[in-house]
Amino acid sequence: MAYSREQLIEAVSAQMPDKRWKHTLGVMESSITLAERYGADPVRAETAAILHDVAKYWPVDRMREVIEQNGLSLELLKHDKQLWHAEVGAFVAERDYGITDAEVLDAIRFHTSGREGMGLLEKVVCLADYIEPGRDFPGVEHIRQKALNSLEEGLIAGFDSTISLLLAKRRIVFPLTVLARNDLVRILEDKI
Amino acid sequence: MAYSREQLIEAVSAQMPDKRWKHTLGVMESSITLAERYGADPVRAETAAILHDVAKYWPVDRMREVIEQNGLSLELLKHDKQLWHAEVGAFVAERDYGITDAEVLDAIRFHTSGREGMGLLEKVVCLADYIEPGRDFPGVEHIRQKALNSLEEGLIAGFDSTISLLLAKRRIVFPLTVLARNDLVRILEDKI
Repeated sequence: MAYSREQLIEAVSAQMPDKRWKHTLGVMESSITLAERYGADPVRAETAAILHDVAKYWPVDRMREVIEQNGLSLELLKHDKQLWHAEVGAFVAERDYGITDAEVLDAIRFHTSGREGMGLLEKVVCLADYIEPGRDFPGVEHIRQKALNSLEEGLIAGFDSTISLLLAKRRIVFPLTVLARNDLVRILEDKI
Repeated sequence: MAYSREQLIEAVSAQMPDKRWKHTLGVMESSITLAERYGADPVRAETAAILHDVAKYWPVDRMREVIEQNGLSLELLKHDKQLWHAEVGAFVAERDYGITDAEVLDAIRFHTSGREGMGLLEKVVCLADYIEPGRDFPGVEHIRQKALNSLEEGLIAGFDSTISLLLAKRRIVFPLTVLARNDLVRILEDKI
């Protein structure tokens, strides 16, 4: 069954603390703004935004179970648990909330890691997640500035900040993020 | 035919400017020091060091020809030309200089990129390439300090500096380097 916008909001907001729901409201707002700025569909962008963190506060064991029992990327289990919720979220969006739009599902699936060959909707939601109004980390203003003129420049700035932070914290850098960033750098080089 | 140490030195030094040969002398010295410190064979480490940059000053077309005609990793051609000389160097070391020691060849092949599961000799030559006495880049002292106590800590510091520099210069980050760095971080975590 397909959920209405209001039903989705009700179901998803019930699965996370108020603070995280406030972040989701911010990502919804920024996704619509970026979609309108860069020619994506604001309604589909908002749907992906509503759902992007649906599994973020699930217990780790519940996420692991979904990954293992449904043949999701087992590669994922080797990486930081912070990354699991995106893949699990896309699965849940389809199974439990009737989302069938493949681009909306991919926007949820790759909102944290990015990947090579990102589609327009993926870029919008991933960048919105970096710059939504509630975000306040060193460098976020730089990303917001870049996002005003180019979706790709905004994302490169975002990915660069993520990779730098992970190096500094001595945490595992997800290879997909590096591939996504390299891909965007190449795309912009080819445009010159 | 196998070359003597002196013959290798003569043949390799003739293929690069004096300044780069001076760098190779530094890598030979540091490779021996690190090999003795961490229990590798100093003779094999020095052999790899002598040859590590043999193809560094070859014209790009000559490197491309070797890669294409001998079935070396074509993936490589998509990446920065700075990385080609290592793979080509390993090939040339075997074909032209009679090196048959697989670990010496791998130490040449992966001295720039690193990789997951690096062997002892690979680590020694790769780290020596970062810290040889002639090196003078921001952060090199930090890497030298780390190298005094741990081959792996030294390499993580080296790879982190490479990745950060490539991000800052908006150049492609070679995925193998990220995998190599993640692998070492995991190995050290497991040791705790």
